[in-house]
Amino acid sequence: MELWYTENQTPNVKFSMKVKSHLYSAKSPFQQIDVIDTYEFGRVLVIDGWTMLTEKDEFIYHEMITHVALATNPEIKKVLVIGAGDGGTVRELTRYNSIEKIDMVEIDETVVMVAKEFLPFTANKLDDPRVNLYFEDGIKFVEGKNNEYDLVIVDSTDPIGPGEGLFTTEFYKNCSNALTENGILVNQGESPYYQKDAREMKRAFSKLKKIFPICEAYQYHMPTYPSGHWIFGFASKKLHPIKDFNGENWEKLGLKTKYYNKRIHVGAFALPNYVIEQLNEQEY
Amino acid sequence: MELWYTENQTPNVKFSMKVKSHLYSAKSPFQQIDVIDTYEFGRVLVIDGWTMLTEKDEFIYHEMITHVALATNPEIKKVLVIGAGDGGTVRELTRYNSIEKIDMVEIDETVVMVAKEFLPFTANKLDDPRVNLYFEDGIKFVEGKNNEYDLVIVDSTDPIGPGEGLFTTEFYKNCSNALTENGILVNQGESPYYQKDAREMKRAFSKLKKIFPICEAYQYHMPTYPSGHWIFGFASKKLHPIKDFNGENWEKLGLKTKYYNKRIHVGAFALPNYVIEQLNEQEY
Repeated sequence: MELWYTENQTPNVKFSMKVKSHLYSAKSPFQQIDVIDTYEFGRVLVIDGWTMLTEKDEFIYHEMITHVALATNPEIKKVLVIGAGDGGTVRELTRYNSIEKIDMVEIDETVVMVAKEFLPFTANKLDDPRVNLYFEDGIKFVEGKNNEYDLVIVDSTDPIGPGEGLFTTEFYKNCSNALTENGILVNQGESPYYQKDAREMKRAFSKLKKIFPICEAYQYHMPTYPSGHWIFGFASKKLHPIKDFNGENWEKLGLKTKYYNKRIHVGAFALPNYVIEQLNEQEY
Repeated sequence: MELWYTENQTPNVKFSMKVKSHLYSAKSPFQQIDVIDTYEFGRVLVIDGWTMLTEKDEFIYHEMITHVALATNPEIKKVLVIGAGDGGTVRELTRYNSIEKIDMVEIDETVVMVAKEFLPFTANKLDDPRVNLYFEDGIKFVEGKNNEYDLVIVDSTDPIGPGEGLFTTEFYKNCSNALTENGILVNQGESPYYQKDAREMKRAFSKLKKIFPICEAYQYHMPTYPSGHWIFGFASKKLHPIKDFNGENWEKLGLKTKYYNKRIHVGAFALPNYVIEQLNEQEY
């Protein structure tokens, strides 16, 4: 018997992976969580039928969501991570000795439990002494926070289900308040290619641009996400991701990366015209 | 009834598009050619079961295979295009008034015939007076050519079937001879992500590096190709794609593009570490 997992990337597009075994399946209070082992991609975390990460290419996502901000501001000491229950974002952050505190707020404790058991390649640094885990709603967690974090990373799912409130103006404003003067917000910014993803990308950027003086987007090649062309947002009060970036300083840290490097840092902000045009549109 | 076209991107990965109608299907002396109309991607050309282009994103491929070289050397006058029966590469080239001659060598006349009938969005410039169509084997066509072209574009399929000989050392040497002193070779360089594609990418670059003093790779986001992360090779005798590039001069031409721009030109050469490592390996 052949077992295949199929993601309906749009109503008219399917992406399928051949499955070795179905390792875990359960409904948490928030969502349906599955882990499969696949021939091509190793272990895969699937939430509500959407691919969240694969063992083969999670390094791309997790390096790009962290190192761009850390290389722009090597003085980052206090970090808030919202979502990211698999632990991959925290894993990359813990590589910086300069970071003193990582607050990670994941609404669904089950995701962390599942990651610790089935995805040790991402969850292996969640017990770092600098990491504080909060199983709470990230939207509520940032309310009222003031001048507390040098970096906020919104490592969210798509804006459906529990991820929806992480794409609102009010949430972004609270993040801005929670940030220090040199603070940076990095958010999972969806994708420019398929209509539904592009609409969410435009909505998120329309809102961020109204709140942050500096608001840029950078792209990365993520083969197992729909279209493979995905975007992170870089929003900040003061620091510019290219003008304030010193690649030589970052290289002196000696961190070995598989995707990120100082040329990618700059190159990722060079967006295709059709993406720039979308980001310049207002969309609500 | 629902009709779906499925591409087996690897033995363990499938990509499927919902089909409106199957417009054309025939076996030429060289290959199986199909054209379908799809809900998500418009018209799609499929050869031997592999997606060659879609109406939705062919602009990415065709802009990136042409404008990078033309912007590096605005003096390009004589161009040889090998493959490219759909006409998209020629369409982009004809936008440059500075180009005097385009020789296009496509082994399979049926592809051109099909493109003219079913893919007018790419085939609409094949009757430009500067274009000379040769229905011959591109491998034989370049043999013995000397100092004739400022640019050779190898717009090939994967190195299986008729495309195989376009990935050999002998062919690349003949291309080098066919090029003028400032000549540039751009080749479809496969992809770093899935093992089979990555092997072909490494094989092609190992060979090119031995023949051309300058040999670089640049990447583009191609959603309907496996992994979405694809590579072109830029090989030349003298001109460097970044050091000899003047973005302002290219912008003065006033060409409207949907993907390519002067920042992408530079950014596309910023490759992820895992790709750089592969390109530095020798593979035969």
